Amino acid sequence: MSETTLTLEHHLSSIHAALRVDELTQVDEAIASLEPAEIALLLESLPLGDRIRLWERVPAEVDGEVLLHVHDEVRSTLLDEMDPAEIKAAAADLDTTDLAELFEDLPRQVAEDMLRSMDALQRQRLEETLAFEEDSAGRIMRTDTIAVRADVSLETAQRFLRWKETIPDNTDALMVVDRDGYVVGKLPLARLVSHDQEIAVAEVMDDDIDTISMDMKTREVAKLFETHDLVSAPVVDVEGKLLGRILIDDIVDVIRENSDQALMNMAGLDEEEDLFAPVLPSAKRRAVWLGINLVTAFLAAWVIGRFEDALDQIVALAVLMPIVASMGGIAGSQTLTLAIRGLALGQISRTNSQWLMRKEIGISALNGVLWALVVAVLAVLWFGSIGIGVIIAAALVINMLAAGIAGIAIPLILKRLGIDPALSGSVVLTTVTDVVGFMAFLGLATLFLL
Amino acid sequence: MSETTLTLEHHLSSIHAALRVDELTQVDEAIASLEPAEIALLLESLPLGDRIRLWERVPAEVDGEVLLHVHDEVRSTLLDEMDPAEIKAAAADLDTTDLAELFEDLPRQVAEDMLRSMDALQRQRLEETLAFEEDSAGRIMRTDTIAVRADVSLETAQRFLRWKETIPDNTDALMVVDRDGYVVGKLPLARLVSHDQEIAVAEVMDDDIDTISMDMKTREVAKLFETHDLVSAPVVDVEGKLLGRILIDDIVDVIRENSDQALMNMAGLDEEEDLFAPVLPSAKRRAVWLGINLVTAFLAAWVIGRFEDALDQIVALAVLMPIVASMGGIAGSQTLTLAIRGLALGQISRTNSQWLMRKEIGISALNGVLWALVVAVLAVLWFGSIGIGVIIAAALVINMLAAGIAGIAIPLILKRLGIDPALSGSVVLTTVTDVVGFMAFLGLATLFLL
Repeated sequence: MSETTLTLEHHLSSIHAALRVDELTQVDEAIASLEPAEIALLLESLPLGDRIRLWERVPAEVDGEVLLHVHDEVRSTLLDEMDPAEIKAAAADLDTTDLAELFEDLPRQVAEDMLRSMDALQRQRLEETLAFEEDSAGRIMRTDTIAVRADVSLETAQRFLRWKETIPDNTDALMVVDRDGYVVGKLPLARLVSHDQEIAVAEVMDDDIDTISMDMKTREVAKLFETHDLVSAPVVDVEGKLLGRILIDDIVDVIRENSDQALMNMAGLDEEEDLFAPVLPSAKRRAVWLGINLVTAFLAAWVIGRFEDALDQIVALAVLMPIVASMGGIAGSQTLTLAIRGLALGQISRTNSQWLMRKEIGISALNGVLWALVVAVLAVLWFGSIGIGVIIAAALVINMLAAGIAGIAIPLILKRLGIDPALSGSVVLTTVTDVVGFMAFLGLATLFLL
Repeated sequence: MSETTLTLEHHLSSIHAALRVDELTQVDEAIASLEPAEIALLLESLPLGDRIRLWERVPAEVDGEVLLHVHDEVRSTLLDEMDPAEIKAAAADLDTTDLAELFEDLPRQVAEDMLRSMDALQRQRLEETLAFEEDSAGRIMRTDTIAVRADVSLETAQRFLRWKETIPDNTDALMVVDRDGYVVGKLPLARLVSHDQEIAVAEVMDDDIDTISMDMKTREVAKLFETHDLVSAPVVDVEGKLLGRILIDDIVDVIRENSDQALMNMAGLDEEEDLFAPVLPSAKRRAVWLGINLVTAFLAAWVIGRFEDALDQIVALAVLMPIVASMGGIAGSQTLTLAIRGLALGQISRTNSQWLMRKEIGISALNGVLWALVVAVLAVLWFGSIGIGVIIAAALVINMLAAGIAGIAIPLILKRLGIDPALSGSVVLTTVTDVVGFMAFLGLATLFLL
């Protein structure tokens, strides 16, 4: 089946074609060969109309799984097409953790019905899970953890497992707890099966383990999994008692989402955005971002407006001024991106930010001077005026320096203010490089050329 | 230990401080409490001088692991500080797969010495691994796979494991092979320990498994792990014979790197770039990107230059023209980012690109008209000329449409040409939105206002 992903694009086009000509059996066959996550990707890759028609062909028993794998926005487009009974059936197949992830997206009425139709234990579990912060360990942990006591022998442990019969395939280790339920260690199944069965769990278990507190942020949990190469880890309450476990496959989703976010936010987009959302809502969302940037643009224009005389007398200024602004913008966005990545990876802290600032200023200075010379020469050749060459060179150096400083300072300040640097960093930066660029160039020109 | 990550920033500042005042014992204690990956992060978070001093304090036995976890550029800064003997010692602790990852970064002489000092088997293994493409499954697979035959009983399998004694803790499943070594299934340890020991492996094994061909691209492998929620998977040769296994923790690195790349490349940066690289080399690298963008900027300036008369007569044009260009740039970069993410996730294909194009054009049209009206009104109020208002409105709509079309077309074309859309997309896009923006605005002004 390893070809599935390789040919997912092929699947996409064939299903797309099949839908067009209503070859529904062909569609059904294709779907049958796919994992829920792949069906989810297909649904996300189709315009609304086709998406709904494909969704209707998806077998009810995987509906729940598929709903889990699509982005929030796509999810709502799918839920809109289901009647309460279908939604309940889909949700019924999910375990508490997955249901919790879906729950808030369900229609109010349906959600309430479900809660009522649940037995006391189910309801309690769900409510406990929902009580955790949305991006906390408690929210994504599984409760199918299998725990053993440290003082039993491996043989006894194995007998216990055989008695339990059904153990999740993805169980890689047993959690070891004491009589009060405190986590004291972890017993990888690999150790359970490779040691003499007479000896006690305590002797072979791994007792220097990473426990995750229930309210740890998923972002932090992901870092822990990455730095410690974990496959699973126990989640504990404030006292250190075992609550459940977090598995790597849920962490992979967290990592994917977090890195997507930075990329999307830098363009003022939402990570959950549906690529095939209808025009109107998409346009609305983007309008906001464009509006914010329009303010920036007008601010820049206003700055230019202060120098009408200069522009009136020397038309070359109007021709060359965008160069100063754009070079600053490029240099700044490079520094900004580095800083945003560094902050995300935890490479940047108050400790080393000064050093980083000095480094970026140094780079800006070098490149500023280098390209200032190039631009100056070209400007002189073009307009035959030494003065303009000197002015644009000076303005370019000034703007590049401003860009380097802003590229580091802006994300650090935004972060301290609790604002996502990826989201607002670029707007603020452009404002700086535009304003400084136009002001330096036109200002110097007014001072020395008029 | 779960606090380690939470307080990594704290560690950073304390170690930074300790290094400053030469409190080396304090540094050593801090290091001792950290995982190699965390030490790697600390090293990446320090300027070269401090980095080297910290590196000297890192115990030799973890050197190899740490070298594996740092980005390529940082790695070379660390290797430069080690003498051949140290490097050999560090590399000696690594398994073939990890050694292969390090090998090409080692000084030529050292590498050759190591090859010579290896025994025949080791050398053969290493050379086999190095023979695989750098981003192929064969390169990242582990050879510590444990295989059993389908016809043996679970009890026999367990006896075999106990006889083998040392099994990697991260072993979650045994690979099931036939007498010729072809993979016929996978036996999760969870099933091995939870079923009646008398029955045969064949009866409990999972025979519908994902096998990975040795030359599959790591990017594809990652997709497979994500869509199928895998923890490990067998790697097979062209015939389907078992070669080794790939584990999720190596895949997590692949996912992280791939998503980082898009972000960095969009700013013309290299994913492997050292945040604390010395000024000169960094400046050199960035200079290239700035140079490329300078061409764009001059192209835009040249376009403006074609309309000197218009600018000469109506200074308002010079004041307002950046607005047209920048709004186009913002709208375009939003579409471009969506497209780049969609391509990375495999959501976009030839099948749906037309639909996507129509959608983006629709969004551009709506937002174009909306903001054109706003800008027009403001322009009229500012310069008291209806003409300018009409002209800028028209130019803005034209440029937004161009941006929407370019935002989809450029990444698709670049991808078909085998060029990374994330890397060159933004430059090409800016060129389009600048040129179209200035040309439309100044062109229309020349036609109707002079």
